[in-house]
Amino acid sequence: MKRDNETPKALTLQEVADLVDGGAEGDPAGPIRGAAPFESARPDQITFAAQPKFLKALAATGAGAVLVPDGFQGPSDKPLVRTKYPQAAFAKVLARFHPPHRPGWMGSAAGISPSAHIGGNFSAGDNAAVAPFAVIGDDATLGKNAVIHPHAVIGDGVVMGDDVVVGPNVFIGDGCRIGDRVTIQAGSVIGSDGFGWAPEGSGWRKIPHTGIVRIEDDVEIGAGNAIDRGTFGETLIRRGVRTDNLVHVAHNVTVGEDTLLVAQVGIAGSTTIGRHSILAGQVGVSGHLTIGDNVTIGPQAGIGKSIDDGEVISGAPGIPHRVWLRVQRIIPMLPEIKKTVDALEKRLKRMDDNG
Amino acid sequence: MKRDNETPKALTLQEVADLVDGGAEGDPAGPIRGAAPFESARPDQITFAAQPKFLKALAATGAGAVLVPDGFQGPSDKPLVRTKYPQAAFAKVLARFHPPHRPGWMGSAAGISPSAHIGGNFSAGDNAAVAPFAVIGDDATLGKNAVIHPHAVIGDGVVMGDDVVVGPNVFIGDGCRIGDRVTIQAGSVIGSDGFGWAPEGSGWRKIPHTGIVRIEDDVEIGAGNAIDRGTFGETLIRRGVRTDNLVHVAHNVTVGEDTLLVAQVGIAGSTTIGRHSILAGQVGVSGHLTIGDNVTIGPQAGIGKSIDDGEVISGAPGIPHRVWLRVQRIIPMLPEIKKTVDALEKRLKRMDDNG
Amino acid sequence: MKRDNETPKALTLQEVADLVDGGAEGDPAGPIRGAAPFESARPDQITFAAQPKFLKALAATGAGAVLVPDGFQGPSDKPLVRTKYPQAAFAKVLARFHPPHRPGWMGSAAGISPSAHIGGNFSAGDNAAVAPFAVIGDDATLGKNAVIHPHAVIGDGVVMGDDVVVGPNVFIGDGCRIGDRVTIQAGSVIGSDGFGWAPEGSGWRKIPHTGIVRIEDDVEIGAGNAIDRGTFGETLIRRGVRTDNLVHVAHNVTVGEDTLLVAQVGIAGSTTIGRHSILAGQVGVSGHLTIGDNVTIGPQAGIGKSIDDGEVISGAPGIPHRVWLRVQRIIPMLPEIKKTVDALEKRLKRMDDNG
Repeated sequence: MKRDNETPKALTLQEVADLVDGGAEGDPAGPIRGAAPFESARPDQITFAAQPKFLKALAATGAGAVLVPDGFQGPSDKPLVRTKYPQAAFAKVLARFHPPHRPGWMGSAAGISPSAHIGGNFSAGDNAAVAPFAVIGDDATLGKNAVIHPHAVIGDGVVMGDDVVVGPNVFIGDGCRIGDRVTIQAGSVIGSDGFGWAPEGSGWRKIPHTGIVRIEDDVEIGAGNAIDRGTFGETLIRRGVRTDNLVHVAHNVTVGEDTLLVAQVGIAGSTTIGRHSILAGQVGVSGHLTIGDNVTIGPQAGIGKSIDDGEVISGAPGIPHRVWLRVQRIIPMLPEIKKTVDALEKRLKRMDDNG
Repeated sequence: MKRDNETPKALTLQEVADLVDGGAEGDPAGPIRGAAPFESARPDQITFAAQPKFLKALAATGAGAVLVPDGFQGPSDKPLVRTKYPQAAFAKVLARFHPPHRPGWMGSAAGISPSAHIGGNFSAGDNAAVAPFAVIGDDATLGKNAVIHPHAVIGDGVVMGDDVVVGPNVFIGDGCRIGDRVTIQAGSVIGSDGFGWAPEGSGWRKIPHTGIVRIEDDVEIGAGNAIDRGTFGETLIRRGVRTDNLVHVAHNVTVGEDTLLVAQVGIAGSTTIGRHSILAGQVGVSGHLTIGDNVTIGPQAGIGKSIDDGEVISGAPGIPHRVWLRVQRIIPMLPEIKKTVDALEKRLKRMDDNG
Repeated sequence: MKRDNETPKALTLQEVADLVDGGAEGDPAGPIRGAAPFESARPDQITFAAQPKFLKALAATGAGAVLVPDGFQGPSDKPLVRTKYPQAAFAKVLARFHPPHRPGWMGSAAGISPSAHIGGNFSAGDNAAVAPFAVIGDDATLGKNAVIHPHAVIGDGVVMGDDVVVGPNVFIGDGCRIGDRVTIQAGSVIGSDGFGWAPEGSGWRKIPHTGIVRIEDDVEIGAGNAIDRGTFGETLIRRGVRTDNLVHVAHNVTVGEDTLLVAQVGIAGSTTIGRHSILAGQVGVSGHLTIGDNVTIGPQAGIGKSIDDGEVISGAPGIPHRVWLRVQRIIPMLPEIKKTVDALEKRLKRMDDNG
């Protein structure tokens, strides 16, 4: 969501420290009026330094103060705020200066637009906002502070928690369950029928999809995703999952807590992905697999086998990343290797003949 | 589409057999009230067993009866229904117990919502339903029992057959033709302009797309697809084709009868795909190729050459699957192979020097 | 966009030549009433021939006249129009005979539909058209001849140039900037939040996205794209860029003038792509890279390193195309090569033992 440009009240360094649960050191020239990247920050802004190359060069930023790790030892003539997670603290300060933008269609206060279509037996929490032309089915429930953007379609019997944001042109299918603090970006589809077809002669009979999609708390779904409902039971997106754009999640998949699915990832049916794993862009995972916790899968990898906790996998088919690094150096040499092998064979044959 | 949870009238085993054109054997404790997977079925539900591992263990399911292949020989203390395609029969029984859900926006009967936008010279068959905020262009025709979901946009001159379901936020471009019993899931685009650009100096001039998309009968298009219209003539999706989510089909492609396109497949312009073929997830096919009938292409394969009927292809570039299986075992060994070859070369050189 | 089938006024060969800035030779039987492909053109239509195989066989087309390159030497009994870019000229003539279709919802003239939602402080240029159920935020500006299709959502403060077409179900986020003569096809999302997450314990804190997407003049965005706004600053789509369907462009990417992004391409954050480059279907590019001008990247290539101007790259990881052509011939031979190497090793060992 775009943030307003109005600049909220400036902060003292101590107020920043309190906000990010950190410790202030030194005395900036003036109040902090914003947050900006290391290279472009101005004296009235704060930035962050987490990696050594930035921590070694604090003088190089124009920022009036810097968020640094608790353990930072180096010298600094810059005012500092020591905190456990400097980048997260930076995000927190940035959000403080860029509060969520109130969409123009909302007018002066939240509420249900008279030009929305609202089904029967509808209930919404305090301060819920439903945009013009949004369509909400029968027996749907929105929590507090829900924001339903224009042209979102919420199916019958959908139940959502508090502080949910449903973007423009999003569809949430009948009966799906959405937790608290979930954001679904524009154009995503939650609860499409899965790709389930039973062979019948030369054709295919559709297997009815009687399940749902359940999205737990603190999830963000990117733009243009498609997440299928379960054939039976649930497709489950666990707490803290984040997906990028154009991600496909098939029926009865489970994605574990705090796992990141980068753009254009595709996960086939009934596969389970563990906690705090990262699937890089365009990764494809076959069906009925188990991917462990804290797994990292490199871009475009093709995963056809289950993966244990903590593994780092790359390539198609996926192999340990350290092996892949060596393999990918060899691949361009293959024509030379082939030549060498042919030559060796010839020479040995000659030796035999002469032997 | 989600199905209702109301449970329709229970069935006797003989009624199930009649429904699936099979033969009943044995006498279940009570009537059949539903259908469920082998592992989770209850005594008042029927399941199916098609693979040996299930057929050998019929006692292991809690189901009150089991759909099995006609030819099943093994012993069974379970009531059975013998039928030609047990899984398809299972899908049929499941559909019987989960009839399509009538969307809340439809109210007590089908009809054209007064808050839809309907163009001039519109005609619709009996029992057609058009949702609030759907937009239908001029000279459009819907068949019997059409269901046009909210925010669908149907272009001018679009003609659809009977029993068509157009999901939320779907766009069907001007002049496209849709057959009978076609379902298009949420967010898909049918009839976008293709990617056709004529070089003009350092830039590109758009080639007008004057063609259409024709979708034949009994097709299901997944969520978030993009199917381009022909530059001239048609992009053709033949009878019985099924596409998964986020599939791209370029201008003037033909996809043959009963072919499956799995999620995130992309097919470039003017390629023809045969009948009853399966393209697995994330497959990419270049333009102006001919892919035969009964072809299977493995996940993420990259297809740059035409493929004959019945071939099984994997890898990028695509090669016969049986070769790919061996190749993918060798790839991780490449660093070792390289070492061995280098060592062999050194030793031969030494022999020469000493010779 | 579909074009009308009404055929506008026929053209003499000289009128065609004037239109495409070319020279007419010969005298067609009658006026030119359309443009069609080489194989299917009729005597009252013009076609084009650019490649030798067509130029050598001009007699083979049924067309009444042919657009050929200025330098064409060969004999011809066909009336010709010599021009610098025959295919672009063909596209120009085709567009002349297929003017843009006026959508039925527009009625007899452009204008703002009374059933659109228009925010405060809205301004639109002459002849702008806004469809039923389109939603336009506060402080938005449309240029002349803008066409905003049904269910498009234009955010607050969006500013667009002249002759912009925004397709059905498109979302353009708050504050984005769109140039002149830009077309955005159905279902695309411009200005989604990027995928930016700061680690915070086992979870992730969202980095607010305070930037925008800027699209310069003469750009066409395909269907179902997702283009993220900048975290800070801009995601920049430069003049003349064309994207195909289902393309992902992450935050703070720059795509250079006249570059083509083919279907399902994904570009990670902060990467810069040069001018007049072509990324083929399903290519993935990692973040923070620099891809040069006039670069060509083959289908499904995986790009993890920056690329110099003019290079032609294929494979994953990407390598020079000429090397890739040889490598891909070797890959299927790997099992045989492995066997040979093993045999050679055995034989040498035997020689040693006998030595």
